[in-house]
Amino acid sequence: MEVIRTIHEMRKAVKLWKEQGKTIGFVPTMGYLHEGHQSLMQAAKKQTDIRVLSIFVNPIQFGPNEDYETYPRDEERDLSIARNEQVDCVFMPSVKEMYPQPIRTKVQVAEVTDKLCGASRPGHFDGVSTVVSKLFHIIQPNKAFFGLKDAQQVAVIEQMAGDLNMDIDIVPCPIVREADGLALSSRNKYLNAEERKQAVVLSQSLSALNDWLQERTLTLEQIRNRLTEQISKAPLAHIDYVEILKYPELEPPEEGQMLAQMTGKYIAALAVKFGATRLIDNHIFTLQP
Amino acid sequence: MEVIRTIHEMRKAVKLWKEQGKTIGFVPTMGYLHEGHQSLMQAAKKQTDIRVLSIFVNPIQFGPNEDYETYPRDEERDLSIARNEQVDCVFMPSVKEMYPQPIRTKVQVAEVTDKLCGASRPGHFDGVSTVVSKLFHIIQPNKAFFGLKDAQQVAVIEQMAGDLNMDIDIVPCPIVREADGLALSSRNKYLNAEERKQAVVLSQSLSALNDWLQERTLTLEQIRNRLTEQISKAPLAHIDYVEILKYPELEPPEEGQMLAQMTGKYIAALAVKFGATRLIDNHIFTLQP
Repeated sequence: MEVIRTIHEMRKAVKLWKEQGKTIGFVPTMGYLHEGHQSLMQAAKKQTDIRVLSIFVNPIQFGPNEDYETYPRDEERDLSIARNEQVDCVFMPSVKEMYPQPIRTKVQVAEVTDKLCGASRPGHFDGVSTVVSKLFHIIQPNKAFFGLKDAQQVAVIEQMAGDLNMDIDIVPCPIVREADGLALSSRNKYLNAEERKQAVVLSQSLSALNDWLQERTLTLEQIRNRLTEQISKAPLAHIDYVEILKYPELEPPEEGQMLAQMTGKYIAALAVKFGATRLIDNHIFTLQP
Repeated sequence: MEVIRTIHEMRKAVKLWKEQGKTIGFVPTMGYLHEGHQSLMQAAKKQTDIRVLSIFVNPIQFGPNEDYETYPRDEERDLSIARNEQVDCVFMPSVKEMYPQPIRTKVQVAEVTDKLCGASRPGHFDGVSTVVSKLFHIIQPNKAFFGLKDAQQVAVIEQMAGDLNMDIDIVPCPIVREADGLALSSRNKYLNAEERKQAVVLSQSLSALNDWLQERTLTLEQIRNRLTEQISKAPLAHIDYVEILKYPELEPPEEGQMLAQMTGKYIAALAVKFGATRLIDNHIFTLQP
């Protein structure tokens, strides 16, 4: 496994692979790898000849009061996980390498970004789409793999890649969960024992939602209220948002309609704080008459 | 010479050239080709194996009161010029092909874009950088050729390509002029006989500037005033801006210094209206102690 830290070296490797006619699969991450990331590497292994994993905690996607400084990092552990997953190359540039001077260019996706996490984290998705655009230009992958835990991020990247005619397949991969249902996240390590225990309310409420969807006379508004109620039962849970929107457009569904009358793809998306730790989870579902 | 109108077909051609190890030179234009464009095609011919010319009048870079509808178009003449210049492929997509639905993604370059034409044409450079980014992703050139008549556009594209790590050489090419000095532009055809005659004041003032630069005790402010004065002598000239800035940063130079004390690269940039027609011209120069 190659570990590459400069853009120049990365371009050389990419050029060689392209000359050999190899397809490139790309898994962008901020490191502190867990089984969610591993599932992306495994998907890449099935679909492409060469797998590149990037590890870069991207400063421009963190707000001024967010956890950029304290975001968990463990290079050695990450490299050993990548090696076990038979990744071909890890690209781990420094901040100086990615931003040699303050960046003046922004890739900005409108509409999809002003809801959900975009509303509570202004500028976050500009930072994401800009850095992903940079990484795409450096690594020039045929396919890029993203976890659906960050479903809005997937929607943003798909919108960007489509709008800007990037010649890259965006491959969304299912959420990976702990045994009790908690969606894997590098930020889970911030939770203390009691918070960790109560955090399971997110996935539990989304499982319950799956049952409620069978009650065909309910409206999405009623389901949303039930979600809110259920999450609020966890005393440590502070809701940031509980939303049901069309997916991937992230537009509000028509109001007042019963499930039986509705069609299309929807997302139930949650962001809930436990202490200082903000967790997100979601469930994407399709309604048919 | 291939004429391609769809992104799908264009990608197929690009894929084939890449497999054959060919380098691609790209000349993006809005058509109504003149010798300025021809000089770009000739530069591409010298430097790359395959030359792609795009012709696309990009609606999103025109303001609501600008000349998008009336911008001159002449497909047959353009194709015959391209053929004469031994271009390999002309990419001329429809607006529907480039914008199948309203675009939500914007590539936005800050600072370099808020001066000169950016100040009088809000949103213009967002439209330029976004469409150039799309075309770059479709055509995947090794080198892209831009005329220095639009020197700010060159600065914006260089900034974008650098910031976003696009693996493309941006090649700026010198301004091409009529016998009397008028910089070639598709918009020159809007000028009536008297306007056309007076429009020569732009290039004449820039030639005079070249002489003034020998007077080493002058300041750039004084030179700027002389430019303004000289242009104002043309009765039909309505100045939009006359500016001298650092190039390519487009930042204001230090004030009050004599030429003899200054170093670096600068641009004298003009935008002047004759009737309804807005013309631009510029001269880039280097100061040395």
